[in-house]
Amino acid sequence: MGRGKRADLIVHEGLPFNAEPPGEVLATGEITALDTFYCRNHGAFPHIPPQQWRVRVEGMVDKPLTLTYEQLTNGFSAHSVVATLVCAGNRRAELLKVRPIPGKDPWAHGAISTAEWRGARLADILDAAGVCHEDGLHVAFNAPDVAPEASPVQAYGGSIPLSKAMSSEVLLAWQMNSEPLPRVHGGPVRVVVPGYIGARSVKWVNTITVQPGPSENYFQALDYRILPAESDPDTAAPGEGISLSSLPLNCDILVPGDGAEIPAGPLTIHGWALAGDGRGIGRVDVSVDGGHTWRQADLQPATSRWSWRLWSLTVEAQSGPMTLTARAWDDTGATQPESPAALWNPRGYANNAWAQVEVTVLPCSPDPTNHRPAEKPTSELRPPS
Amino acid sequence: MGRGKRADLIVHEGLPFNAEPPGEVLATGEITALDTFYCRNHGAFPHIPPQQWRVRVEGMVDKPLTLTYEQLTNGFSAHSVVATLVCAGNRRAELLKVRPIPGKDPWAHGAISTAEWRGARLADILDAAGVCHEDGLHVAFNAPDVAPEASPVQAYGGSIPLSKAMSSEVLLAWQMNSEPLPRVHGGPVRVVVPGYIGARSVKWVNTITVQPGPSENYFQALDYRILPAESDPDTAAPGEGISLSSLPLNCDILVPGDGAEIPAGPLTIHGWALAGDGRGIGRVDVSVDGGHTWRQADLQPATSRWSWRLWSLTVEAQSGPMTLTARAWDDTGATQPESPAALWNPRGYANNAWAQVEVTVLPCSPDPTNHRPAEKPTSELRPPS
Repeated sequence: MGRGKRADLIVHEGLPFNAEPPGEVLATGEITALDTFYCRNHGAFPHIPPQQWRVRVEGMVDKPLTLTYEQLTNGFSAHSVVATLVCAGNRRAELLKVRPIPGKDPWAHGAISTAEWRGARLADILDAAGVCHEDGLHVAFNAPDVAPEASPVQAYGGSIPLSKAMSSEVLLAWQMNSEPLPRVHGGPVRVVVPGYIGARSVKWVNTITVQPGPSENYFQALDYRILPAESDPDTAAPGEGISLSSLPLNCDILVPGDGAEIPAGPLTIHGWALAGDGRGIGRVDVSVDGGHTWRQADLQPATSRWSWRLWSLTVEAQSGPMTLTARAWDDTGATQPESPAALWNPRGYANNAWAQVEVTVLPCSPDPTNHRPAEKPTSELRPPS
Repeated sequence: MGRGKRADLIVHEGLPFNAEPPGEVLATGEITALDTFYCRNHGAFPHIPPQQWRVRVEGMVDKPLTLTYEQLTNGFSAHSVVATLVCAGNRRAELLKVRPIPGKDPWAHGAISTAEWRGARLADILDAAGVCHEDGLHVAFNAPDVAPEASPVQAYGGSIPLSKAMSSEVLLAWQMNSEPLPRVHGGPVRVVVPGYIGARSVKWVNTITVQPGPSENYFQALDYRILPAESDPDTAAPGEGISLSSLPLNCDILVPGDGAEIPAGPLTIHGWALAGDGRGIGRVDVSVDGGHTWRQADLQPATSRWSWRLWSLTVEAQSGPMTLTARAWDDTGATQPESPAALWNPRGYANNAWAQVEVTVLPCSPDPTNHRPAEKPTSELRPPS
């Protein structure tokens, strides 16, 4: 593919390049390999050699400045954060079963991945620029990639509240899993906003503006918003609906996959849970009877509070159709809505309904070659090479 | 009643005094009158004249101190915060329809009220005591009221994270709606922790302890926790389940009341919405067809981000049974779970399912004396005198 990506990615669009890994390969470990990490783009990748990259910091700052790659990477302390990025459209496929969503990709279970990001704290850069500390300000990011889907056509951008921008987890990152940030993921330098929808982690960032209100960029003012179900997204006004920012409490089932055929007997279910914007996961429940009764999954520890918690549970699968359901509770005792039908919205964002996959359990077979990938026991799942 | 409370409170217990106003009287305005504000207690009220009240600040502080009422009220800047307090058991009645919860009061719609609190910032008092600023510390509150329901019997207490305790909205309050804090609400001085379950706003506080972990008090370590549905609360170990802290996104319908008989014609529905711990409300949806279709309610502004948003919507009521449903969305695009059945927990806490009331719409009658209170139009609802 020329992008350093594994061959089994599910490609929704070639240009802009939008692709997700099969859910089950995400279950192999907390950190997602570079060749597996999902790709969500709105335009063609810009090609910016590090020595040509610049970022301008301007707006409500005392000392507007322009940083080169050299100045950014050598002039500020480097910090690492393990953080999960999630596309706001992840799990849209379940919303599409409720009602069509024209013009939007049917992201399934894989528009989510986790990396160790390394870079400078955005707060340090804003401080170097003498940022104004008034309440209620926003920090807007602009990038050079032009998005044909925007109306009018424009370069990609977005913004976050200044209070979030000043938090220690928000980086201008130039490394991903100890490698130079790949071009496909925003290299040489991108914003990483842990706990927020992926759309705010602007790739190839070239301008950072401190300003009184949110960005007026199409992707902040019009897209990435929850509209009421009856709204027409084509005629919605800028600012209509609820702007997406911090992630909702969510979880998903990665193994087995939707529609998998699995042998009767012990079945280990794998998935992730994430509470959004730094909250913790209190519990993950798994049901094999559609949510009537629940068992608690085993939660793996997370490297940071910005990273997903992988979980697993072994149940006894009996032959016939089987519905697997999962739901997470955060550390304040809140849990997820039940049904995608109640969450359907015209742009298909932020589906955080109970996770549900349907599988078929086959009578026990002595022939392991009958098994599809999704039924492999954990020990056979290997990190992608 | 000798407690300065209106006669129509629904009294669940006389001692400890536990009582809630009828839901519809809460709809009359953002601020709840003192005689209407709900009462949730675990023991007999202590009688502490202001001149005898003391609070001890101790634990991980450089300069432990004891403050008199005079020192607290004259030695620190006074701040006002309009904040809603909610009992974690509010809306338990809906959980009781799912499955019984022995030993717990059937709070309906009224274990929530809003006041303007005035007092000193807890942060200022902790700073005066030279609080240790390590990450992860907690601030425990103790009070003199002894709770017979605790095991073993003990005085009431609880704790909050130090990071919350240092937030500007957390007060040691001595005034409520510009009156001296009534004894029934924790006077002369109580803690007010906006955005958290009411149980952490400890009344008649006498000890504040900065410590490495949460309080070991019965009401922090054992009660006020979300246990899995299958757990036995009588044998749960300390620390089991998810400790309740910041409130979940929630809303309720206050007018009309459950089971009300209303005349056909225009019906104005009133309710509240609150996102918990300072988040905003993005939208409130109301449905008259069980959640199949929704209309957006009109949201009243709130005085502070710690106060509920009252909302209303006028619909056309046609004769026959009618189910009214409401749900709120917060300003990050998250919404509430659908059904109390999925939220049932052994102690009956934190029900934040879609609000739902059943009413009967009578064919239009010219005789207004047929109307029950819940069907009065808004203009007839008066603040309690």
